[in-house]
Amino acid sequence: MQSMLQILDFLGVAVFCVSGALVASRLRLDIVAFLFFGVFTGIGGGTLRDLLLDAPVFWVVDQAYLVVCIVISLLMWFLAGQVERLGSPLRWADAVGVAAYSVMGAAKTLSLADAPVVAVMMGVATATFGGIIRDTVAGQPNALVKPEIYLTSAFAGAGVYVTLAEFGVPAWPAAIAGGCAALLLRGGAIQWG
Amino acid sequence: MQSMLQILDFLGVAVFCVSGALVASRLRLDIVAFLFFGVFTGIGGGTLRDLLLDAPVFWVVDQAYLVVCIVISLLMWFLAGQVERLGSPLRWADAVGVAAYSVMGAAKTLSLADAPVVAVMMGVATATFGGIIRDTVAGQPNALVKPEIYLTSAFAGAGVYVTLAEFGVPAWPAAIAGGCAALLLRGGAIQWG
Amino acid sequence: MQSMLQILDFLGVAVFCVSGALVASRLRLDIVAFLFFGVFTGIGGGTLRDLLLDAPVFWVVDQAYLVVCIVISLLMWFLAGQVERLGSPLRWADAVGVAAYSVMGAAKTLSLADAPVVAVMMGVATATFGGIIRDTVAGQPNALVKPEIYLTSAFAGAGVYVTLAEFGVPAWPAAIAGGCAALLLRGGAIQWG
Repeated sequence: MQSMLQILDFLGVAVFCVSGALVASRLRLDIVAFLFFGVFTGIGGGTLRDLLLDAPVFWVVDQAYLVVCIVISLLMWFLAGQVERLGSPLRWADAVGVAAYSVMGAAKTLSLADAPVVAVMMGVATATFGGIIRDTVAGQPNALVKPEIYLTSAFAGAGVYVTLAEFGVPAWPAAIAGGCAALLLRGGAIQWG
Repeated sequence: MQSMLQILDFLGVAVFCVSGALVASRLRLDIVAFLFFGVFTGIGGGTLRDLLLDAPVFWVVDQAYLVVCIVISLLMWFLAGQVERLGSPLRWADAVGVAAYSVMGAAKTLSLADAPVVAVMMGVATATFGGIIRDTVAGQPNALVKPEIYLTSAFAGAGVYVTLAEFGVPAWPAAIAGGCAALLLRGGAIQWG
Repeated sequence: MQSMLQILDFLGVAVFCVSGALVASRLRLDIVAFLFFGVFTGIGGGTLRDLLLDAPVFWVVDQAYLVVCIVISLLMWFLAGQVERLGSPLRWADAVGVAAYSVMGAAKTLSLADAPVVAVMMGVATATFGGIIRDTVAGQPNALVKPEIYLTSAFAGAGVYVTLAEFGVPAWPAAIAGGCAALLLRGGAIQWG
């Protein structure tokens, strides 16, 4: 369980960090702004989760998360052009990040308290906060008045995980099912939406 | 005292939740956005208060607040049209919410620490945060550069409560006086402003 | 160490409060808005720092910080015109505030945990949060998509302090060196940028 949380944490932080750096790249900002967007998009959702759960903030406890964000942001400063050529990289990074973070936010809440409604809510908040702040700071208001882009997928991920966990399904299968549900909804919207 | 805090908490959460759903309705958003606006406007102010006071976040401890927000948001999805016909429902929901939350923020602070200046400040922050975030997310900047709409009323509510409490007036009469002060200021502005 | 943190805290709060009141003055807002901008710009950065570090929020523990912000905001209501005639007062207040807060955020983190990367990050977050929120609320988006204005200077201040502290330099000389590094970078940009 603890190792699952940590793997999902690093995955979510990494892909959200990529998405933040991509936004900095599209705005043609400098390397300091890459770091800024990469770091706060990467750690934003998990920070909100830990504050609300009154848990120690994960990147204050373990410096590795910050180091990962810094390294990715600097790499993206050189590689953003290549990454853009992959086709919709920002949307895919967002989709994977929301899938990982929605399950993780829900799982961390259930590991601390037996509160399924709160766990779903926390999964949604964890998965959406980084991207919403990123888009607000970048001055892209559409993502805010169209929150369903983030929310439906995050609801699916956290909801499936919490439902399965409440029925006694072990952590890993429940997490994979939740992540797939979130990815399918969002990925479908990217491909055919 | 504890029961008063809880009643004010539920009242404030409910009316702010209504105000958030009304904004979603005016922007013609979908049901997911109704939930989003309803929940974060409803619990936003109290969440900020509990984080600053280093108290457990109220809706993480007791799932009933989230359930109330979800039920109200879903009801508003069907009833927003009727509610709009009542005349200025958004402003009245806001006015009642600010009155309830300003007193409650101040009362909760005084119940944890003997710090009247902090208590007034916390009442103002608790009462205004939900509405300010709601208007920012909805892209209505006027409420931000015109903070006096929220602030004067919240100052009145928290200020009257803290002053009376410091002079030894019991919690309920002080709370009613504070709430009335906030409502009168704001209600007067709605009727004649 | 403790006394250094407190002196830097008061200095940072005071100059950021001045900068917030100056923004309210330029927007020709009323006295309530002066209080609003002055208080939240003054205490914003340190509040974020204390929440992230899971430390008691400094202005909740000691009412003096709020009183300082209230007094300064009210004074600025009368004196903003004179202060504006000093030449770029907003930029200088910002520059001194960033210098004081970047060192203080880093120093407070190192006093609680042996985590240099986190300390630099916390210095940057502490020094930039108040100003970024102030500019967002005032509807000045440039400061957000040009975060380097705040960030480079804050990086310099926190980075120099943490590097010197890691090499065993005592707190005061390290703080003065960090503050000067931040001021030089920012001040140079104001004079010749």
